[in-house]
Amino acid sequence: MIRAFAAAVLLASAFTAQALADPLPSWNEGETKTAIIDFVEATTSAEGGRFIDPSERIATFDNDGTLWAEQPAYFQLLYALDKAKEMVAADPALAEKSPNLKAAADGNMEALLADGHKGLLEVLAATHSGMTTDQFKASVDEWLATAKHPKTGRRYDDMIYKPMLELLTYLRENGYKTYIVSGGGIDFIRVFSERAYGIPPEQVVGSSIKATFVVTDDHAQTQKSAELFFIDDKEGKPVGIDHHIGRRPVIAVGNSDGDLQMLQYATRGKDNALAILLHHTDAEREWAYDRDSHIGTLDEALDEAAREGWTVIDMKEDWSAVFP
Amino acid sequence: MIRAFAAAVLLASAFTAQALADPLPSWNEGETKTAIIDFVEATTSAEGGRFIDPSERIATFDNDGTLWAEQPAYFQLLYALDKAKEMVAADPALAEKSPNLKAAADGNMEALLADGHKGLLEVLAATHSGMTTDQFKASVDEWLATAKHPKTGRRYDDMIYKPMLELLTYLRENGYKTYIVSGGGIDFIRVFSERAYGIPPEQVVGSSIKATFVVTDDHAQTQKSAELFFIDDKEGKPVGIDHHIGRRPVIAVGNSDGDLQMLQYATRGKDNALAILLHHTDAEREWAYDRDSHIGTLDEALDEAAREGWTVIDMKEDWSAVFP
Repeated sequence: MIRAFAAAVLLASAFTAQALADPLPSWNEGETKTAIIDFVEATTSAEGGRFIDPSERIATFDNDGTLWAEQPAYFQLLYALDKAKEMVAADPALAEKSPNLKAAADGNMEALLADGHKGLLEVLAATHSGMTTDQFKASVDEWLATAKHPKTGRRYDDMIYKPMLELLTYLRENGYKTYIVSGGGIDFIRVFSERAYGIPPEQVVGSSIKATFVVTDDHAQTQKSAELFFIDDKEGKPVGIDHHIGRRPVIAVGNSDGDLQMLQYATRGKDNALAILLHHTDAEREWAYDRDSHIGTLDEALDEAAREGWTVIDMKEDWSAVFP
Repeated sequence: MIRAFAAAVLLASAFTAQALADPLPSWNEGETKTAIIDFVEATTSAEGGRFIDPSERIATFDNDGTLWAEQPAYFQLLYALDKAKEMVAADPALAEKSPNLKAAADGNMEALLADGHKGLLEVLAATHSGMTTDQFKASVDEWLATAKHPKTGRRYDDMIYKPMLELLTYLRENGYKTYIVSGGGIDFIRVFSERAYGIPPEQVVGSSIKATFVVTDDHAQTQKSAELFFIDDKEGKPVGIDHHIGRRPVIAVGNSDGDLQMLQYATRGKDNALAILLHHTDAEREWAYDRDSHIGTLDEALDEAAREGWTVIDMKEDWSAVFP
């Protein structure tokens, strides 16, 4: 009797301690939150046979639409449009030379996205090259400090998801190394990843253009060319992970078909791995889009999630807050 | 008088403590050892104006000829020769199709090195592709466990430099993050970097061939193609560092002209950075070679070291031990 009482008290106090120390306060109670916490507890516990050595605790996160918003267009594209506008204003002849650069300067995104990603890539190359890596980063930093999102009026680096920040912190507190693996530009993301997410530059994997090395009497720098080096999207994500990290992730988090292969790479043929998809279902607090969206298309990956039993975050249901 | 005595006692005990805790016991006392310890102490001390934030304490090390030996040929080439021999034995028609593969199978290194690096690259491609990354790593692991160095009869991963292991440990104990930045293959080095040097796979930068992503019902893997992706040598080293780490090193260590640009990248235009060159001067315990060597040519970088005041390790004079 006394033992039963003592056990009940212990249980209750353990329950209270856990409730007090909720690692994911912006996540509503439910299947999604439970699946995440269960996985982290199982893989960090010596008992239960699912322990993962700290060196293998690799968690990879997509960026656009997973850690920060991506509507009405990828924020890096909005940066490129602003830069294109500056470039065309400074040298109007550019508009005649490149219809895509003109479309960018005019903010005509439909024209840019019409031809697959070709127009987009041309504008990205034009606005992301011909300078040193340091100069590019300074330009992005300046833009982030002043540019405002067209719908919310917030700074772009304020449009990050509070529940995801909690998840990143929770994972790191449990010995997970958190990486960004993004289709976006590696140098672009590195400008704000540490201050926004606590993810240092060496843990950012992304798309990139070729760089060259330039040395003078005063400095030695890398210079960004206009030639693509690597596209870290779809099949490119597992390849980029393998190249940068050299280990397979055990947690992979994404929100679109561009993340499908990364989630497969983390989980296929393995029992002890967690794939998470963020489904944008919240038209009120954020945006609602999936299969038919041009930006962040979520179609095949949603089907695969159902087949494979991946964890799908329903933004509207699962998150009590969206932005900080 | 009493104060002077107390000061002398303090000084003596501090001296004793430091002597007891020599972080680099295989390094002889002298300019080289002093330069290294002075730099580490200055950059980790709040006083003196040379403090470097732990996040920026990046130290990059070349591998071949810097962390392990590279004579009579790069060890990865010796792996490729052994594999070429196996391949030609299994399928003799290969020898007719590829004179370079035949030269490799015959151990005819002169023929392989005659035409710049072309023959070598062909043999590397043939022996490093057409398998998954996991299969390749398993093959290297097996080879390392059995292959012996032709001169010393040691395992290749025993031919690592004891003083460099001490330096790596000393740097990590002082908050430095240690990286390998090698012209050698990234997947090859990752097989042994953690157990040999304490450097995890995600801190290895190297040359690589293109990979593709292959997914089946049972597994998802990367597959190595025969096409070059990136050569992490000479001008490629700063580019590779920038791509993988996204920060400039403050310590860079190499031994050949292939490391010149990495050392420039770390130090040019900066007061608070350390460039170290290992000069192979010890024909008795290891090898003596520099300007005229085909492997690990040290010519331009030696001149630059003299001009720039870089720290040059004289293996014979500065190291009391070479191998563990």
